Amino acid sequence: MTSKLRTLAVTLLFGMGLAAGAFAQDVRGIVVYQSDFGLKDGAVSAMKGVAIGVDPTLRLEDLTHEIPAFNIWEGAYRLNTTVSYWPAGTVFVSVVDPGVGTDRKSVVLKTESGHYIVTPDNGTLTLVSESLGVAGLREIDEATNRLPGSENSNTFHGRDIYSFTAARLAAGTITFEEVGPELSGGPQLIDFQKPAPIDNGVAGNIPILDVQFGNVWTNIDRATFEKLGVSLGDSLDVKIFEAGTLVHEDRIPFVSTFGDVPEGDPLIYFNSVDNLSFALNFDDFAGTHGVRAGPDWRVEVTK
Amino acid sequence: MTSKLRTLAVTLLFGMGLAAGAFAQDVRGIVVYQSDFGLKDGAVSAMKGVAIGVDPTLRLEDLTHEIPAFNIWEGAYRLNTTVSYWPAGTVFVSVVDPGVGTDRKSVVLKTESGHYIVTPDNGTLTLVSESLGVAGLREIDEATNRLPGSENSNTFHGRDIYSFTAARLAAGTITFEEVGPELSGGPQLIDFQKPAPIDNGVAGNIPILDVQFGNVWTNIDRATFEKLGVSLGDSLDVKIFEAGTLVHEDRIPFVSTFGDVPEGDPLIYFNSVDNLSFALNFDDFAGTHGVRAGPDWRVEVTK
Amino acid sequence: MTSKLRTLAVTLLFGMGLAAGAFAQDVRGIVVYQSDFGLKDGAVSAMKGVAIGVDPTLRLEDLTHEIPAFNIWEGAYRLNTTVSYWPAGTVFVSVVDPGVGTDRKSVVLKTESGHYIVTPDNGTLTLVSESLGVAGLREIDEATNRLPGSENSNTFHGRDIYSFTAARLAAGTITFEEVGPELSGGPQLIDFQKPAPIDNGVAGNIPILDVQFGNVWTNIDRATFEKLGVSLGDSLDVKIFEAGTLVHEDRIPFVSTFGDVPEGDPLIYFNSVDNLSFALNFDDFAGTHGVRAGPDWRVEVTK
Repeated sequence: MTSKLRTLAVTLLFGMGLAAGAFAQDVRGIVVYQSDFGLKDGAVSAMKGVAIGVDPTLRLEDLTHEIPAFNIWEGAYRLNTTVSYWPAGTVFVSVVDPGVGTDRKSVVLKTESGHYIVTPDNGTLTLVSESLGVAGLREIDEATNRLPGSENSNTFHGRDIYSFTAARLAAGTITFEEVGPELSGGPQLIDFQKPAPIDNGVAGNIPILDVQFGNVWTNIDRATFEKLGVSLGDSLDVKIFEAGTLVHEDRIPFVSTFGDVPEGDPLIYFNSVDNLSFALNFDDFAGTHGVRAGPDWRVEVTK
Repeated sequence: MTSKLRTLAVTLLFGMGLAAGAFAQDVRGIVVYQSDFGLKDGAVSAMKGVAIGVDPTLRLEDLTHEIPAFNIWEGAYRLNTTVSYWPAGTVFVSVVDPGVGTDRKSVVLKTESGHYIVTPDNGTLTLVSESLGVAGLREIDEATNRLPGSENSNTFHGRDIYSFTAARLAAGTITFEEVGPELSGGPQLIDFQKPAPIDNGVAGNIPILDVQFGNVWTNIDRATFEKLGVSLGDSLDVKIFEAGTLVHEDRIPFVSTFGDVPEGDPLIYFNSVDNLSFALNFDDFAGTHGVRAGPDWRVEVTK
Repeated sequence: MTSKLRTLAVTLLFGMGLAAGAFAQDVRGIVVYQSDFGLKDGAVSAMKGVAIGVDPTLRLEDLTHEIPAFNIWEGAYRLNTTVSYWPAGTVFVSVVDPGVGTDRKSVVLKTESGHYIVTPDNGTLTLVSESLGVAGLREIDEATNRLPGSENSNTFHGRDIYSFTAARLAAGTITFEEVGPELSGGPQLIDFQKPAPIDNGVAGNIPILDVQFGNVWTNIDRATFEKLGVSLGDSLDVKIFEAGTLVHEDRIPFVSTFGDVPEGDPLIYFNSVDNLSFALNFDDFAGTHGVRAGPDWRVEVTK
């Protein structure tokens, strides 16, 4: 019996007055998928079919499949802002894998928060391993953790290794220890500028754009920013650099929300993940000013 | 025990011959999401993770997340054509929220058909409140209906208020009454031209395009149209206006289905929601003739 | 009690030591959707709502809804590469239906592998009927297998006939035989060039592009290719024709994986469905050389 059914059974019995069981803290039986595959072909569906073949009671959900092709950094960012909103015990599969066929390792990270992430170890774990902590990191033993029958052809790792392993882990078919040998030294990390105080201000990088609306998100957290002693309504000097070259500069008010400035005007605000961000109310800040995201981008916000 | 597990338990007992329970008329435990967030980032996934945190047995499905940014009207239309195909008891979350941060209210509508819609009250409920009826409208008490821990930062309403409240309502954790105080006066409504007889014809508006195929859908229903006494095969004069300016005029046959006209030819037909529509067989009517949709658009169909 | 709940009950009892039941070989209660509807409107959601109305315990998943409009061939291909990764008993709905309103039949195919496909019989079954075998083909009796209440208006076949029938079949409400009368002669087939030996090489067609990455996939399988006696590292002459006209020619190494050639270089490799393919490492082969896919496209690979 899978762990999810076990939970159901315990709960049913509890409801029937036959047992004093209760939901465990960790929720088992959930797999959440992220990739750069898009949804135009059958790749994501085949991954899910394999998981259902492992255990037909699994819950399969998605993070996103629209990570730009090969953009490990964006995959790392999406994981970091989403994982913690799912219950502990959730197993994530992230497949952004430009190095498939090289010697990059296939791993499972267990975070200190109790989440699992199945992924090529290529930098995808950079942000989440820092924010949620590393409780364990294991290399997938592909001899045992591989869809039966997939040995004789070139492997689609996302389906034959990652989804298969994630499903077995979520179903309780294997333990975290049975994934494979422990990796010391932690996951591969991508270098990027962290938020830091500068003269009369704060610097940071642009990890991501809020693509749907063209807002620019920085990695400057509230605690770092508040040390500047800025009040709502104050205007600040914003400089945005790409690889050291100034791309945009403006003086912008720090406000609580979009509605605090006229349509078309710029604003500085804290976004939904509580990081300092730049936007144009009802318009596209990033597109208008040619701003993009990634490790090369740097911002300075000064009084 | 959540209501969905309760249903399962009753059904299992029934199947085991231990009880005479049966499915209630209303299906509990379903949340269906709509937004203008797109699927490129983790916003939709975070909303769903929060719902699973409320009750891991919930069924989470989607309407669409590709409402054009800030297009309340299109959100209203998609709800109106989809809600009634889901069982009574289904809880919809619709987040198209250009007024976030203003004084727009967060509400839950209960329709006379027994569906629930959790949304900012900004016009999103215009069409569905008329077609399915208002059984109740309550303002969300954000002090009690808010993801714990989200009080101290700027709120992502879709995740922290709307998905959280929808999940609790779908799971039976709270009743409709516990959403918050009743709102008299009904939801906010957007003004638009309703289908109406004109001299020798009928007028209406273009609520939406069938975007995938470029077909133009009007709000002219079958009953209003049939008063004209038109027969299949008759040709009719079609005029399409934007804000009073004629954009396209043609004489087009009224037929049963696309196959009734040659490839590339125009047709008038009743679409899948039984409204009068214009199309080019195997081509793009809207793109070819520069027609769009919204409250400003008006059509006249005359003999 | 639905068959899915029955499976759950059996499993729970098994886990409690009360019964010796086990999972049947076939998994019931799963419906997987494919269409050319896109996800911008409510069409897919309405199909799923109807299925939930049939049986609220069904699992509803997706193959893709981004088949290009009216592209039956691509629909056929996506089914063929995905169906077998889902458990036997899974019911697929595929709606790419340019002939709606003509005399094309609505059918359900049962494959020899035990999968079901509900679709217009317009060529969609071309590839899957050959690869998985035809165990049975039945025309949907639309008098009995139709969403109640949909008789009086123009039908949205995907929702009112296909999703409704698929849900009832997956739920065990109807048997395969109750779909409707058996069709002799098999499904409608689209003509295309199969892989074949040529002088000093092999010919095939391009069924599909790997659209996300711009890789060109052929239908040349490993067994046919291996008869050439080519070794890893050998370079081969590749010619690509559209309707008999040469579009691209190059000499390209046959390698195991992308990492075996420098960035930007071409490679010949076996893709995840074990067919011969052409790519540029970290670049877009199809876009760079103007190659597309479909029955008209032909490739020659020679020593």
